[in-house]
This record gives sequence, structure tokens and C-alpha cells, in this order.
Amino acid sequence: MLSVNEEALEIVYDLIDWSEELKIGAHTLANGSTVIDCGVEVTGSYEAGLRYTEVCMGGLGMATLNVRRIGNVPLTAIDVVTDHPCIACLGAQTAGWQISVEKYVAMGSGPARALAQKPEDTFEKIAYHDDASCAVIALESDKLPDEGIMQFIADECGVDVKNVFALVAPTSCIVGSVQVSGRVIETGIRRLSELGFDTRKIQHAAGTAPIAPVVPDEMRAIGATNDSIIYHGSVVITTSGFDEDIFKQVPARTSKSYGKPLYKLLEGTGYNFSAIDRAIFAPAEITVSDLDSGKTYHTGYLSDEVITESYKIRGI
Amino acid sequence: MLSVNEEALEIVYDLIDWSEELKIGAHTLANGSTVIDCGVEVTGSYEAGLRYTEVCMGGLGMATLNVRRIGNVPLTAIDVVTDHPCIACLGAQTAGWQISVEKYVAMGSGPARALAQKPEDTFEKIAYHDDASCAVIALESDKLPDEGIMQFIADECGVDVKNVFALVAPTSCIVGSVQVSGRVIETGIRRLSELGFDTRKIQHAAGTAPIAPVVPDEMRAIGATNDSIIYHGSVVITTSGFDEDIFKQVPARTSKSYGKPLYKLLEGTGYNFSAIDRAIFAPAEITVSDLDSGKTYHTGYLSDEVITESYKIRGI
Amino acid sequence: MLSVNEEALEIVYDLIDWSEELKIGAHTLANGSTVIDCGVEVTGSYEAGLRYTEVCMGGLGMATLNVRRIGNVPLTAIDVVTDHPCIACLGAQTAGWQISVEKYVAMGSGPARALAQKPEDTFEKIAYHDDASCAVIALESDKLPDEGIMQFIADECGVDVKNVFALVAPTSCIVGSVQVSGRVIETGIRRLSELGFDTRKIQHAAGTAPIAPVVPDEMRAIGATNDSIIYHGSVVITTSGFDEDIFKQVPARTSKSYGKPLYKLLEGTGYNFSAIDRAIFAPAEITVSDLDSGKTYHTGYLSDEVITESYKIRGI
Repeated sequence: MLSVNEEALEIVYDLIDWSEELKIGAHTLANGSTVIDCGVEVTGSYEAGLRYTEVCMGGLGMATLNVRRIGNVPLTAIDVVTDHPCIACLGAQTAGWQISVEKYVAMGSGPARALAQKPEDTFEKIAYHDDASCAVIALESDKLPDEGIMQFIADECGVDVKNVFALVAPTSCIVGSVQVSGRVIETGIRRLSELGFDTRKIQHAAGTAPIAPVVPDEMRAIGATNDSIIYHGSVVITTSGFDEDIFKQVPARTSKSYGKPLYKLLEGTGYNFSAIDRAIFAPAEITVSDLDSGKTYHTGYLSDEVITESYKIRGI
Repeated sequence: MLSVNEEALEIVYDLIDWSEELKIGAHTLANGSTVIDCGVEVTGSYEAGLRYTEVCMGGLGMATLNVRRIGNVPLTAIDVVTDHPCIACLGAQTAGWQISVEKYVAMGSGPARALAQKPEDTFEKIAYHDDASCAVIALESDKLPDEGIMQFIADECGVDVKNVFALVAPTSCIVGSVQVSGRVIETGIRRLSELGFDTRKIQHAAGTAPIAPVVPDEMRAIGATNDSIIYHGSVVITTSGFDEDIFKQVPARTSKSYGKPLYKLLEGTGYNFSAIDRAIFAPAEITVSDLDSGKTYHTGYLSDEVITESYKIRGI
Repeated sequence: MLSVNEEALEIVYDLIDWSEELKIGAHTLANGSTVIDCGVEVTGSYEAGLRYTEVCMGGLGMATLNVRRIGNVPLTAIDVVTDHPCIACLGAQTAGWQISVEKYVAMGSGPARALAQKPEDTFEKIAYHDDASCAVIALESDKLPDEGIMQFIADECGVDVKNVFALVAPTSCIVGSVQVSGRVIETGIRRLSELGFDTRKIQHAAGTAPIAPVVPDEMRAIGATNDSIIYHGSVVITTSGFDEDIFKQVPARTSKSYGKPLYKLLEGTGYNFSAIDRAIFAPAEITVSDLDSGKTYHTGYLSDEVITESYKIRGI
């Protein structure tokens, strides 16, 4: 069985080696653990965002940058591809581990989850666990973790704290924008899992989404970055076991919260995430090639209009 | 002179090193030869398909994956580029060596052809031969070759059997889909050669084609994968010696068999390949930049309709 | 501080190692300096053009090749991305050092400028200097430099001549076509600098432009390659300090010389470059994401018509 932590570690070493070029910071803490700041006290970079995405996918995905047009306007976009969709996404990339130690709270994603088995029901479903001796975690936060947090992660993962590596970035920075769009496949796979589909049947996946502008406000950044996927994320998968009733429900448009920028939706609920229908956190469209029948299905559509509103794009 | 076998061997070593990540299998046979299963007893991967394409091009081409739209539907596509179009395509990638030993029959392509000089008239035309001490072949087959087949290839290539490497994939698997689309430039160069053009004059080439869905039936897979090129393959070349009469005849639409999915055509002939006009095996369109005049010509067009029918795409 | 010369040198070594594959020539002169011929006595390649672009950007940019359509016609295009726009472009890529020694005249660009501080006012503005012990320069010329020229460059840069590396290509060759389009971001950054914007505020940039066909005439080549940017170059930047009055003036269309292929314009002035409004040397369009407000602005447009005329594209 492939180890998502060991695969990711190779990319982590590259991040450390090229930290100056990537405009990130690598810090060794007193207890020997490593914190890689990708946007807290540093600016970060497109390139770091791509590698951050690949780390989150346990080294089992490839991310590239492109210039694409939305309507008349050129923007950057990320393309992601994986031949291990279930493990790379549900087994690593999903933001499924809420780290909460004293005052430090951050959403954790990435391969360390496969050691700590967080959340347990996901790992039971996909029957994957990693027994690597190193742990790589990605923390969506505007604060860097200290020795205590890193020790907590080490303990939960059952590894020596010296072998724990944490990548940290808030949503509101370039790495934040890139890595959220880099979850385009993951949102599709996760939605399928929630709809009861056995995602281990999915053999290959590719996806693309525009990269949201960096917005100087965490809540607005959460809105814009997620809109990239909700209103303009495309996923293409190859699977066996196609079920029309399930796949039809994948696109974000099936959510009752669909239709306006996420930030407006959040505003309307007093920034109460739980008031928002979770089905909105899904790609705009999906193409499914069914290995059993050789047929291909497509559902969903892109909305240039909502993206233009969400990104606050204006011609001058 | 560059050695297509030596260049390809570097990529073959990567395939072996990353076989688990690439979902392929590397086997050393009793006689020391190496068989790399890319889709017979394994699933394979997009990534393996890209590397398979580069191996077929003798390491003198670069293949990348993209998400592109056909009409309303996102699909994966392969981009290929080479600065050695004649050698990479006719000298290596062309499926020009029918391997037939006892009960084993497979179409051979890739750099080993440049050692065995198969077919001879092609290699006379392009005045290329390789004298490497290793041989790399790609076999389109749903059966893995045994020691006898590998020895036969070694003998034909004049190399030690320990230095023979065979990549094997049927058409009906992801590597099959990727690598057939990866022949988009090659179909253009081959067609030009058949039309009497001296392809050594072609300096640079790039191309793109969508990647056909994996179809669970070899004959249908042959149809869908070739349709990717015939109805949606684009080639861009830079050459001297432009001749309008010749280039006008490149696109598949000039074939009398053009117009419906290849599978339907095959069905209509009782699966008799020789009943099909060979001119159909060509890209949908070609752009030619003429180094002598500085002018650029374009001929042919894409057909979203036939691809939609061939890939059996349906909105849900 | 990052050294653009040291970063570029890594790519230069790759160019030397892969010179046969890249169809370029690496020569060590009698005084120990290295000249890499990318299009004078050799053909060159797409791949060499991409690496040439990255060298010009001081190793702080990434260039990739794509097949894109202009109207109905597939063409190759270059995508460029950098997270160090000011240093990579103004500090290295700008063609800002006219090398003129006895009869040899060539426009110099690339990281060596940051050692020689050419032109001085640019380097004062961006407050960047490199103190590497190696110098990498790119010369746009159809003649290879001799020992004297290389010694002159060494002296100006204050490095040992053994550590001077010159990449040389005329405009009229494939590397010329690729590397001019590879300046798409640079033209935008330079224009912003000329308009008085402090380009150190620009954090990230991406761009794309089609690659002009190789034209067998230096003056026509200058026309076609620059038209790639003027009429079809797109730039996307992330910056603080957005100023609508300045950014509105970036696109080439704001120039009074805008409207027809550059070659025609040059012809009309008797090939007198100084008679042409310099504002034309700018990208066709720019998208700006403002880090302060989180808003995104777009100005300019692409012209398929002028590119079709400039590239002399005709359907057959």
C-alpha cells in the first residue's frame, strides 16, 4: 500500500529547499518538528500553492497552473489530476481533522489524517490507513502552530515529533486561493461519498477551477475561493458502478443554497456555516465515464456571472 | 545521432521506479528481459499513459494532460510536442512492426523499430537507424509477452535480451486511450509521408487530442480512441518545402470513409480493417508554418458531433 | 536576496547537457567562456525556447507550451508564470543592455544586467543588484560573440570570463519566436514602470501569448513576434497599490501606433523604430487583482484579425 505521508514528504523537502524562491518560510521548532509557513508571515507564491495542493493529496496528484478566460477576462486556473482519487482526496486532502489545542484552532487536512484516522468513519469506508513514521499535515490558519500543537499532532499520529511537518496558510493569501481551487476533485469525490457512492471504484480523476483573487478578509476569502469550485469547478472521472440518480446530485446547483456568491449567503446567515446546505460544497459540473458500459455522462454547468460577481471583476 | 532507445530507456526506468504510484507492473522475466504491464493485469493511469507516449516517441517528445471542453462537456486531453517530428514519429512511434511469434500477435511500436528497421522502407526514407545496445518496444495487446517473444525481439534488434524492455497495454484501458491520442502528431507526419512529403523537412510539431473514455470492448475502444484524432485531433507543424496540394490532403475529412464514428464504419465492413480507406487515420486539422515563405496555412476542422456520438456522451 | 544569475545557471547547465536533444550548440571559447547557440548555426527547438525564456527571467519564472486556438486555427502558445515579477522581468528579462564592441552589436537581456546594472535607473528604481560570481546573458543576434565580446561582458559584470555564459538567438528562429512571446509579462511590468507604478508591489504574475511562426526575414520576424504580445498577449497580475488611471494605460491599444501589424507600421516609417510610439510594446490586455481592496480589474482586448494578418494565416 502506498504511503501518502511518505509520498508527500518528498514534496515537503522540495518546499524547504526552495523556500526563498517560493516566498515561504521553513522553521524548525525546539522539539525538532518543522513548520512551513506558506502565507502567515510570508507572501507565498503560485508555485507554493501548487506544491501545497500536491502535499494535501498525499503526493498522489499533480497540479499545474494555466491562464484561462472567464468570459472576456483572463484569469489563472489550476488543473489537478490523480490516478488515486479515493486515497488522495478522502484519505488525505479532505479538511477533516479539526485541530484544537488550548487556544489554537485550525482545520487540518493532508496525509497526517491517514495516520490519525480522522475522521474514523471516512477511513473505515475507504479502508485505508497509513503506517508511515512521518506525518505531514496542512493547517488552514492565520497562526503558526507551536511545539505543543506539533506534539499533539505527533501523538495523534503515533510518530516522533521530529518527523512532523506542518504546512500553514490562511485562506486569504495566494497559497490559500490556489489550494482551495486545488480541491476541485476532492469536493466531487467527497460529495459522491456523502451520497453513498463507494469512491474506491473511481480509478482516475482530473479537474480544473479558476484561482480566486486574494481578498484581504478571511470571510470574504472563504467565499471567493469556494465559489471557484461551486460556480466554475469542472471534474472528469472514470469509474465503475455508475448510478445516474447519485451522479445527478453531485453538482453544486442541486443545493438549495445555490445561486449567489457564498459570501452573500454567509452574510445572510450571520456567518453561520451550519445554516448553509452542505451540498453547495461541490463542483459546478462533472463528467463521468462509466467503465462498465463505456458510456459518458455530464451534469451541471459553469456560471460566469456568479464568478464575476464573487471575484468583483470590473472592466476599466 | 540521437539514440531513441537510450532516450526512451531513461523514462522506462522512471516507470519501473514509480510503478506502484502509476498503477502499472514491472516484471523481470527468467531471461532477464523486462515487461512493463500498463493495462493487462493492472489498471494503469493517466500518468503512465503520458510516459508511455513519450517512450513511444523515443524520448524525443513531451506529453502533458489538460482539461478541455468539447462543446459543453469537460474532458481530458493530451498535448504533445516534439522538435524531432520525423525521428520521434516515423522512427519510433509509428505502429509499424507486427510481432507474431507462435500464438502471440501484437502490434509493435516505439524505438525498438529503429534497431530492427521495421518497416525497412520507412527507415530508408528517413535515413535513420539506431545502434543502441538496449531495445524498448511498446506492444498494443491484452497479453503479456513471455521469454520467447522477448528473445525474438532481442534477436531482431541485435541486442542482449537482458536489455529488452516491453511496455504492454491493450487499447481498452486508460493507457491505451492516452497513448492513442498521444499519436496525434504521428498520424499527421505519417500521412504526409504517405503523400510523398519528405518529413525530414519538418522541424517542430505540436498537437492535441481529447482522451477517449475507456470502453470495455477492444473493437469499440479502437473506434473511440482513433476518433479522438480523426474528429478532434489538431496538429501544428513548422516545416520547409510546403506544398499546398499535399497538405490539403492531410486532414481525415479528405478520406472517403470520413463522417461517422470509426466503430460504425468497422461494423459496416464486418470489422474488416482493410475495407477502410487508410486516409481516415489522420488528424482532423493541421496548421502548417512554412519556413521558406513565412506564411501559415490551415486546413480541416473539428467535429464535436461525431466525438459526442463516438464517446457516447449524454447529459443527465 | 535571490541571485538571478545563480538561479539561471542551473537551467544553463541543463541546456548544455541536453544540447543535442534541444537542437542547440554549446561552445567553450578559448578564454573559457561559454556560448550557447540557440538559433544562429543551429535550428533550435520549442523546448530550448522555453528554457531560454526561464534563463532570461533569472530562473524565477516558469514557461510551458500549449496548443491554443485563434479563431478557427490551432497554434502553439507559451504560458509564463512568476512570483517575482519585478526582479524576474525588470531585473533580468528586459532587453536593456545594448552590447556594442567593435563591429559586434546585439541587444542584451537576462540576469547579467543585474551585475552590470544596465540600465542604471532601472536598477535604482527596483533596488536590486546581484553579486553572483557568474554572469548569464541572452543576446538577440544572428552572430555568435567571440572572446573579446565575452571578456567585455565579464568586465562589465565584474566576474571571471570563465564564468560568463551567453545564450544567442536571432529573432528569426524558433527560439526567437518563443522567447519574444515569453516576454508577455515583462512588457506589462515594464509599461507599468514607465507609467510610474512601483512594480515592487506586484506579487504574482501569469501571462500567455501565441508563438509567432518563424519568418525568414529579421525585420518581418520582429514584426510578427511582437504582434503576438501587442495583439494577443494576456497578463494577469496580483498587486497592492492599484491605480485605475495608470492601469488603464497598460494595453497596447492605448498607443497611437496601435491597429495594424508592426511590420506594416515599421515599413511606413522606413524601418525607423524611434518613429513608433513605445506604448505599443505592451500586452493586449491585463487583469489586475488588487490586494488592498480584493477587487479585480480588466482592460484591453485581443485581436484575432491583426494576428491572422501578421502571421499571414490562410485557410487551404
